[in-house]
Amino acid sequence: MNPPETEHTLDLRGASAAIAVRVEKAMHGDLKTSLADCDPLLSEVVHYTLFNGGKRVRPLLTVLCSRCCGRDDDDLYLLAAAFEYLHVATLVHDDVIDRAAQRRGKETVAARYGLAAAILAGDWLHARSMHLIGKLAGHEGLEIFCRATASMVNGEFEQLRHTGNIETKEHDYFRVIRQKTGNLIASTCAIGALFAGADRRHQQALATYGDNIGIAFQVVDDLLDFQGDAQTTGKQTGNDFVEGKITLPLLHALDGASEEERQTIDTLIRGDRTQSEAYQRLMAFIGRHEGFASAARTAQQHIALAIDALAPFSTPDNEDINVTLLQGLADYIIARNK
Amino acid sequence: MNPPETEHTLDLRGASAAIAVRVEKAMHGDLKTSLADCDPLLSEVVHYTLFNGGKRVRPLLTVLCSRCCGRDDDDLYLLAAAFEYLHVATLVHDDVIDRAAQRRGKETVAARYGLAAAILAGDWLHARSMHLIGKLAGHEGLEIFCRATASMVNGEFEQLRHTGNIETKEHDYFRVIRQKTGNLIASTCAIGALFAGADRRHQQALATYGDNIGIAFQVVDDLLDFQGDAQTTGKQTGNDFVEGKITLPLLHALDGASEEERQTIDTLIRGDRTQSEAYQRLMAFIGRHEGFASAARTAQQHIALAIDALAPFSTPDNEDINVTLLQGLADYIIARNK
Repeated sequence: MNPPETEHTLDLRGASAAIAVRVEKAMHGDLKTSLADCDPLLSEVVHYTLFNGGKRVRPLLTVLCSRCCGRDDDDLYLLAAAFEYLHVATLVHDDVIDRAAQRRGKETVAARYGLAAAILAGDWLHARSMHLIGKLAGHEGLEIFCRATASMVNGEFEQLRHTGNIETKEHDYFRVIRQKTGNLIASTCAIGALFAGADRRHQQALATYGDNIGIAFQVVDDLLDFQGDAQTTGKQTGNDFVEGKITLPLLHALDGASEEERQTIDTLIRGDRTQSEAYQRLMAFIGRHEGFASAARTAQQHIALAIDALAPFSTPDNEDINVTLLQGLADYIIARNK
Repeated sequence: MNPPETEHTLDLRGASAAIAVRVEKAMHGDLKTSLADCDPLLSEVVHYTLFNGGKRVRPLLTVLCSRCCGRDDDDLYLLAAAFEYLHVATLVHDDVIDRAAQRRGKETVAARYGLAAAILAGDWLHARSMHLIGKLAGHEGLEIFCRATASMVNGEFEQLRHTGNIETKEHDYFRVIRQKTGNLIASTCAIGALFAGADRRHQQALATYGDNIGIAFQVVDDLLDFQGDAQTTGKQTGNDFVEGKITLPLLHALDGASEEERQTIDTLIRGDRTQSEAYQRLMAFIGRHEGFASAARTAQQHIALAIDALAPFSTPDNEDINVTLLQGLADYIIARNK
């Protein structure tokens, strides 16, 4: 699964790198103020976790969505940074919860600086992101944002509830990933539009775009957990199985399975999930029932919905470069291999 | 140390109980909406941690400060609830960091529901509190609040830095407690005033009141950690020593100590702090140098400063009952035994 080297991809790479540079400049500037007079360790931990090779997808979305709606100034990059702060805050707390030692090939905050530093730095980033959103996107922006963060937490709880249960429905799976990923990405896009003063119709269109690429992103993530190349992704495959997460490839495979096969899979999932043989059997089962291909098609459908949602921004004679980049980003998400 | 049964105390008890009832009603109402359609476990954890015998000091302050400035409506109790949400969010995360099994004689969230639930429920409460503050106290209120929460995190980091170091200065100690407790209590008071539309002078007066009672509260907490009755406080004494926290009674005792005594205390603190004999020797040292009495005097001075700060609200002919209650609360803080 290599990303196709189309013109869009090249545009997107250049544009996203240029945007990331401005977002990181805004982050450095903001941290200089907000961490002034702070403990050096807090500053070190916050910098360590923020400048850690992240893809900066969320800030990119904020910037492109605001630009589509006609606003592009210095404050935009600070607003975009706030979404990265929140994203990183959740990763830091997630790593504590998962007791993870590494992220993107580097030590996690908890592994390097301890539990207290990880929880507190996550809280600091959370507070700072809210502060910036409230300041730059006003009460309405803050409300969209807080609703998305609250739903993220709820998604985690629902996911815990479904752990190891093959009776999980596709509906439950989509509810979880929409809450964990879709809503926040939708809010990233909607707040970018709101910041630019877009009307409700355009805000809603970009929220729909964000919701669908968020879902596609998560489905691709779940596919990469089975099929990714550990060298490229920086993650071992099979983590979801070990954690008992029931993801879309498995759900689609179960749809076509006999009662006997379901029983076998149930036993597998309730058994010792650290056994590589169990994982190989699961992989074979999903492959036999075309769960991977089917999940990939679902991701593709959401990408198509995302691109459709951009229609209000397309004019026959003059394609806005930012809209083209949002289309390119949607294509990249489906084609990504890390 | 029993609270004196003055008329103020009785007024305060009745008034604070009545306010707590309205705050808890506001909390139940808010949770009904904000947790609607949420996972039952998230709802259970949030309720477990919020309705856990807390003293509701912060909401009480918000309400009294707003009332002093002339506003008292239903929204006030929701705003007050937001301060309790944040307070509880920090307690839940603190208990994870301290790996505490009990709080107020009940299991901590982490002990009862696990690490994931504790971190996530804390994040949920944090987000919800910001949401409510932004909604009810506007951008200015949110900014005061976020600055206070960021400083709280920083106070924790500075405290970690000073752990076990008897070279810590009184200035460092006050910096830490101001950041950990004073600023947030000051913001609770200032936002109450802001919510009521008070001018800057009155906001500032109540912030000064809050800062000083916050400091006194923490100094009394540190005294209770040495001298409290475990039955009454619900906490074992000597925790701060075990954790290597250098608090005011010790700092004041060190001020009057010889170089030889300082060496002895340094050795004690760098040694095995779980030894009850070591703790007894520390207690004797502090007592000999009147560290307890001296710290209690400092707390009393801050209470006097808090009461002085209320001057702009006092008129010779007509004392506002809410101002009287704030004075009573200050007196209670110094006299409390739990």
